[in-house]
Amino acid sequence: MNIKGVQKMEKASSGKDINIIKDKGITYPKGFKAAGLNCGIRLKREDLALIYSENIATACGVFTQNKFKAAPLFVTEENLNKSKGQLQAILINSGVANACTGEKGMQDAWETVEYVSEGLKIKKEYVAVTSTGKIGEFLPLDKIKNGVKKAIANLSESGGTDAAKAILTTDKAKKEIAVNFTIKGKEIRIGGIAKGSGMIHPNMATMLGFITSDICIDKELLHEALKEVVKKTFNMVSVDGDTSTNDMVLLMANGLAGNPFITEKDSNYKQFVQGLYIIAEHLAKSIAKDGEGATKLIEAEVQNALSEEDAKKAAKAIIDSLLVKTAIFGHDPNWGRILAAVGYSGAQMDQEKVDLFLKEKIVENGQPIKYSREEIGKYLKDSNEIKIVVDLKVGNKSAIAWGCDLSYDYVKINTNYN
Amino acid sequence: MNIKGVQKMEKASSGKDINIIKDKGITYPKGFKAAGLNCGIRLKREDLALIYSENIATACGVFTQNKFKAAPLFVTEENLNKSKGQLQAILINSGVANACTGEKGMQDAWETVEYVSEGLKIKKEYVAVTSTGKIGEFLPLDKIKNGVKKAIANLSESGGTDAAKAILTTDKAKKEIAVNFTIKGKEIRIGGIAKGSGMIHPNMATMLGFITSDICIDKELLHEALKEVVKKTFNMVSVDGDTSTNDMVLLMANGLAGNPFITEKDSNYKQFVQGLYIIAEHLAKSIAKDGEGATKLIEAEVQNALSEEDAKKAAKAIIDSLLVKTAIFGHDPNWGRILAAVGYSGAQMDQEKVDLFLKEKIVENGQPIKYSREEIGKYLKDSNEIKIVVDLKVGNKSAIAWGCDLSYDYVKINTNYN
Repeated sequence: MNIKGVQKMEKASSGKDINIIKDKGITYPKGFKAAGLNCGIRLKREDLALIYSENIATACGVFTQNKFKAAPLFVTEENLNKSKGQLQAILINSGVANACTGEKGMQDAWETVEYVSEGLKIKKEYVAVTSTGKIGEFLPLDKIKNGVKKAIANLSESGGTDAAKAILTTDKAKKEIAVNFTIKGKEIRIGGIAKGSGMIHPNMATMLGFITSDICIDKELLHEALKEVVKKTFNMVSVDGDTSTNDMVLLMANGLAGNPFITEKDSNYKQFVQGLYIIAEHLAKSIAKDGEGATKLIEAEVQNALSEEDAKKAAKAIIDSLLVKTAIFGHDPNWGRILAAVGYSGAQMDQEKVDLFLKEKIVENGQPIKYSREEIGKYLKDSNEIKIVVDLKVGNKSAIAWGCDLSYDYVKINTNYN
Repeated sequence: MNIKGVQKMEKASSGKDINIIKDKGITYPKGFKAAGLNCGIRLKREDLALIYSENIATACGVFTQNKFKAAPLFVTEENLNKSKGQLQAILINSGVANACTGEKGMQDAWETVEYVSEGLKIKKEYVAVTSTGKIGEFLPLDKIKNGVKKAIANLSESGGTDAAKAILTTDKAKKEIAVNFTIKGKEIRIGGIAKGSGMIHPNMATMLGFITSDICIDKELLHEALKEVVKKTFNMVSVDGDTSTNDMVLLMANGLAGNPFITEKDSNYKQFVQGLYIIAEHLAKSIAKDGEGATKLIEAEVQNALSEEDAKKAAKAIIDSLLVKTAIFGHDPNWGRILAAVGYSGAQMDQEKVDLFLKEKIVENGQPIKYSREEIGKYLKDSNEIKIVVDLKVGNKSAIAWGCDLSYDYVKINTNYN
C-alpha cells in the first residue's frame, strides 16, 4: 500500500494508527448490509447492488459536472435535499445508465426509488439510486423491481463484495477496501467500493464510489471531509479524459460506532479524514490501474509548482497525454513527451529549471543528463506501477495524479463495446 | 473540396472567384524557389527543406504556446523582430526537433542560420529556421551544413513538392495546395505546405505550416490575416491532444504579383483572407486526415452556441474524445459519447435542447429519435470524412473542428517510435 499521498495530508494529531483491511468493504462498518446479484439487465454478470444501513445515516455526495447529467443523479440529489442529508439505502444498477432519457428516464428513476422504499419500509427520501452503463436506453423496470425484492431478501453483513462486483461494467477487478482506527476507545470503521474503467476523467465528482462508516459525525463536517478527500483522490484520476454523465460518490455515516459526536475539526475529525483518504486513494488508484486496456498504473507527481492548481494541471496533463501513455505501454523512456505535456498544461514554469525523475533523475534543468536507456526501459517493462516525478522548482506546491497506459486493448474494448 | 468553412468567412465583396490548384504549393507564387533532399539526418527519407524568395518578403509567424519551446522558434522570432517582419529564406529539418537542448541547442540553431545566410548571401535576420522530430537530441551540424549547400544548388521553381516531402515525419502523405485570384487585373497566388501527424493539438500556433504569396500587402495586415485564419483552421485541429514544442506557421508575401499595395481591410484584403483561409483549411484538414494511425477525418460542427468560445470548446471536446474517436474507428453510432463530450466541454447548454446529426438527425432535444443503426453504421464504415453536427439551440455562434479516429495503428506508431 502506497500511502505517500496520506503523508501529505494533515496527520491525525492523536497519532493513533489506521489499520488497512484489504478484503473488506462497505459492510465492514457496523450496521451496514449489502447484496449484489444478476437481475437480468445483463446476460450473466451481476447488475444490481443494494446497500442498506439498519438506521438512518448522515449522508452526502458529489456529482458529475457533465452538463448531460443522468436522471438518477437528479433524483438522488433531490432526495438528499429533502432528507436534509440523510440516507438509509443506495440502489445501483449496471448495464443501463439512464442518461439522455428525458422525462421518462426521470419517472423511471423515481419508480426504482419506490421499489426500495416499499420493500425496506423506509421513507422515499432516504433512498439514493444510481446507474451505470449504456447511454440513451431506458431502465428495464420489471427486471429491477424483481431484482430489488431479491436483493432485499439477500441483504447481509457479508454482502459487500457481491455489491462491489455488481456495480462493475468493463472493469476487470472489483474495487473494495476498508480501514479501522479508534477514537476514545471506540473502534471506527470505514469501507468503500468503486467502479471505473472507461469514460474516466472526473470533474468534481467521479465514476461511482460508495463509502460507508459507522462514525458519529456532524453532517456538515462529513460533507467537508468527503469534498476535501475527493478532490485529491477520485478527481486526480483519468483513464481517457472523458467525464461521464453518471459520476457520483456517496458517503453514509450511521453513527453506530458510538464515538463522541464529532462537531469540529479536531484531531478525531482529522483522523477520520485520513482514514477516508486511504479508502478514496486506494479506490482511485484501483480505478486507474484497471482502466480500459491498461497494463500499468501511472502515478505522476509534480513538485514545487507555484500553486496547487498549477501542480494539478501539470500532473493531470502528464497522465492525460496519449503520447506519454503509449510510450509507457511501449516501455519507452520518452521523457520529451512528458516535458511537452507539462509545457502545455498551463502551469507556470521555466523550461531551464525543470527536473524529471523516471526511476532516477534523467532530466536536469530542462535537459537530459546521462542515464541508461536500457535500465529505465527495464523499469518500465518490469514495474506494474510507474512513478513519474517532475520538479518545477518555481514554488512549493505539489500534486499527484493517477492514470494508466494506452494499449491496443483500449482501442479494442471501445471499438467493440457491447 | 469542402469550402463550407469558407462560406462562414466574410465574402470578398469583389465577388471574384478563387481558383484552387491542387498539385501546386509554395513555389506556385512568383519569385519563390524551394528544394527538399536527404542530408543524412534520417536514413533515407528527405529531411531538409529550403524555401527562398528572390526578393525580401514581408513575413510573419505564429508560434507554439507550449512553455517548452524549441530553440529554432526563439531564433526565428528574434530574426522576425530584428528584420521588422521580413524574411527571404526558411530552412526546415525533420528528424531532430532541437527542443530541450539548452544553450547548445540555441547556438546550433544560430549556426544553421549562418549556413543559409552565407550560402544565399542574404542578411542573417532574413533567415527563419525550424526543426521537427525527436526531442532532446542535438542537430547534426555537419550534415546540415552540407545539406544546405546542396539545397541552395537545387533551389528551383518546381522544388515546392520536394520541400513538402522533406518536412514530413510520421505523415503518410505530403500536404500542399495553392490558389489564385485576381486583384485589379493582377493575378495573386498563394501556396502552402504543412506537416502534422502526431503531437497535434495546436494552441495559438500549430505543427509546421509554410505559406507563400506574391501579393503586395502591408505587414500589419499580413499578420492580422494570418492570425485570423489560423485560429479558425490550424488551431481547430487535434490528432492526440498533445501540443508540440515546435509548432510554427510562417507566411511570406514578396509583392511580385504587382497588385496595388493593400493597406486597409478593403475587398482586396478580404479576398486575400479568403484565399489564405482555403489554403489553411485544406492543410489543417489534411493534417487531421493524416493523423497517426487515422483511417477517417472527423469534422465536428457545433451550431447555435451562446458564444464562439463555447462553440469551439464543444467542437474540440468532440474531436478530442477518445471514446468518440474509437467509436468512429469501430463504425459505431455511439451518439451518447458525443453528447457526453459536449456536456463536459464547459460550453453553456441545456441538455433538453440539444440536437445531434450524424448523417441525419438522430438526437432531438437531448433524446434519441428513431433512426436506422445499420444505415448510420454503414455511413461510418463507407465514408472517409465523418461529419458530426451538434445544434445547441441556445445562441447563434458556430465553430468547426477537425480530428481523426483512434486506431490500433495509433498505439502501434507511438509505441514503436523511431
